[in-house]
Amino acid sequence: MNDQALAELRARVQQELDQKTKPAGALGGIDALAMAVALAQETERPHGLPATALIFAADHGVSRDGVSAYPREVTAQMALNFVGGGAAVCTFARAAGADVQVYDVGVDCEAFNVEGIHAVKVARGTANIRTAPAMTESECASALEIGQQALVDAVNAGARVVAIGEMGIGNTTSASALLAALLSIPANEAVGPGTGVHGDALAGKVRAVEDALARLEGGESPRELLRQLGGLEIAAMVGVCLAAPEHRCVVVVDGFISSIAALYAVRIDPRVEKQLIWGHHSSEPGHALVLKAAHATPLLNLQLRLGEGSGAVLAFPLLNAACTMLREMATFGSAGVSDREAASTEGADEVAR
Amino acid sequence: MNDQALAELRARVQQELDQKTKPAGALGGIDALAMAVALAQETERPHGLPATALIFAADHGVSRDGVSAYPREVTAQMALNFVGGGAAVCTFARAAGADVQVYDVGVDCEAFNVEGIHAVKVARGTANIRTAPAMTESECASALEIGQQALVDAVNAGARVVAIGEMGIGNTTSASALLAALLSIPANEAVGPGTGVHGDALAGKVRAVEDALARLEGGESPRELLRQLGGLEIAAMVGVCLAAPEHRCVVVVDGFISSIAALYAVRIDPRVEKQLIWGHHSSEPGHALVLKAAHATPLLNLQLRLGEGSGAVLAFPLLNAACTMLREMATFGSAGVSDREAASTEGADEVAR
Repeated sequence: MNDQALAELRARVQQELDQKTKPAGALGGIDALAMAVALAQETERPHGLPATALIFAADHGVSRDGVSAYPREVTAQMALNFVGGGAAVCTFARAAGADVQVYDVGVDCEAFNVEGIHAVKVARGTANIRTAPAMTESECASALEIGQQALVDAVNAGARVVAIGEMGIGNTTSASALLAALLSIPANEAVGPGTGVHGDALAGKVRAVEDALARLEGGESPRELLRQLGGLEIAAMVGVCLAAPEHRCVVVVDGFISSIAALYAVRIDPRVEKQLIWGHHSSEPGHALVLKAAHATPLLNLQLRLGEGSGAVLAFPLLNAACTMLREMATFGSAGVSDREAASTEGADEVAR
Repeated sequence: MNDQALAELRARVQQELDQKTKPAGALGGIDALAMAVALAQETERPHGLPATALIFAADHGVSRDGVSAYPREVTAQMALNFVGGGAAVCTFARAAGADVQVYDVGVDCEAFNVEGIHAVKVARGTANIRTAPAMTESECASALEIGQQALVDAVNAGARVVAIGEMGIGNTTSASALLAALLSIPANEAVGPGTGVHGDALAGKVRAVEDALARLEGGESPRELLRQLGGLEIAAMVGVCLAAPEHRCVVVVDGFISSIAALYAVRIDPRVEKQLIWGHHSSEPGHALVLKAAHATPLLNLQLRLGEGSGAVLAFPLLNAACTMLREMATFGSAGVSDREAASTEGADEVAR
């Protein structure tokens, strides 16, 4: 849809919202959400369901340097927890009536032979970003392609909305490096506790990011920064976002790591921006910086810092509610309810009586 | 459940939450929500569904004085819109899989003869609070009883969670008077635009509240203030809250008017407090004062100011998600995921290698 057609769609949706049986603007963020989903799906009758959480798991070379409170093997263990339905995001998805798809894009283990895990491993984790580019050119391209295909598959299965989620011990370190490099800020502003590192371990995490940034020449494109500093799961999430405009699919963004992926996708292709709904405000400190850079206002603020798409999936029902409202809520005319203009006159009559 | 039993329940739920496959505290507000629902329902296996929105409609004598942007007859029109399924709260309830029950507790019209409206009219609106007590003693008692019975009926029909919502042209004026009287603050701090009054009309609304407050002797009980300044629909919502502890039912509070009712209920019976979940932060200015007085942190902040239970029903899916998480999420042990303690040791080994 070109800009002219989009502007016309926006005007029609706004007119519809203005005629709903409520004081103008009384639904604040829900009106805005309905509009955002309508523009992303390019329709006056948007839908919040079917919705699918796309979760990408991968390991990070830097996780061998003690940057996380959890051991590296948790990535593989959690991938199994996702397909077993026991992870937080799975319980939220069941509550929301949403689907979950799990991709091994780079877990450091033998290939999974488990129903429910998409076995598309590109490598057994990235190289350690302190000393080398995270991915080869070919690895980065493959991870992007996996994400793009994941979105296409979800859309072909009926999804109108997807969430992007991740699992990767060490990936807040990678995300912090991506943030610092993109915004040209110092490592210590971009690094936070992640799963819960403090004190010396936190200082070590800052040094890891500093080392990674020191390898850069400066002037790298977002795509090249992604290859240098990213993770396979982060590149896959970028891929999901890049495929969204063509398929008019909404991408609900999760927390810090997912948001970095979304921001990189927008920097690579600005058309991605209108496909994005920002699910929640994470308590990981760097997230606020990402949101500011993306001019994003998330739907929820529940002090979550779990990742795996959990906060995005928690926001799914708000999309469904907003879309149901836009499609089904009565107008002043259809419901025979007096609008404010009537109010001014009749109210005056009443007072005069 | 006595205090000792509740403390033990809290400890058991916290232990369960701490063993879930996530970094401690990573689910922030969702952990807290699961705990709150568990304590309200007095069970380790709480449920967010079935859920019912209880909506009470009534008119206000003061609405004849031009305090609202909408005419008085909108109350009756909107009651019909609720049972017709066209109001915002109805679309949100459908999206959330929740029920809606509509009560005419005091609309200024002939008795409704419409399937779906509980025809329990106490009076055709309140007296004008500027010049007289809003309700007689008998009217206030009847409205409270209607609310209590509405909760009992909802629970008997299966509800584990209810929302309280209202419709009543002029009821932000009544709620502002209740707020100013309870907190001993000036009328102009408690009054806001409501459905959208500004300028002279807003000044008139402040004067209406000042007139109402001037009638008081001082030292009235919350119950007497409710009778003097409240609305029939507000008293009914107080009744819902008062019945909640005995029936271990969660009450999700909506915006300004609903929150005033909840706060009065807590002041009348402190046991109500643990039954309440605060659904959203309204953009009506007085709401922030009510929330502060209630020590409440709402789940959502979406700049809503519609009432009718809309913000509370939007929060229903969060309760369902939190309860599903508590009941169904895997523990480190059940999922075979390494916990942080393992991490410290193995991580150290790894670094030492």
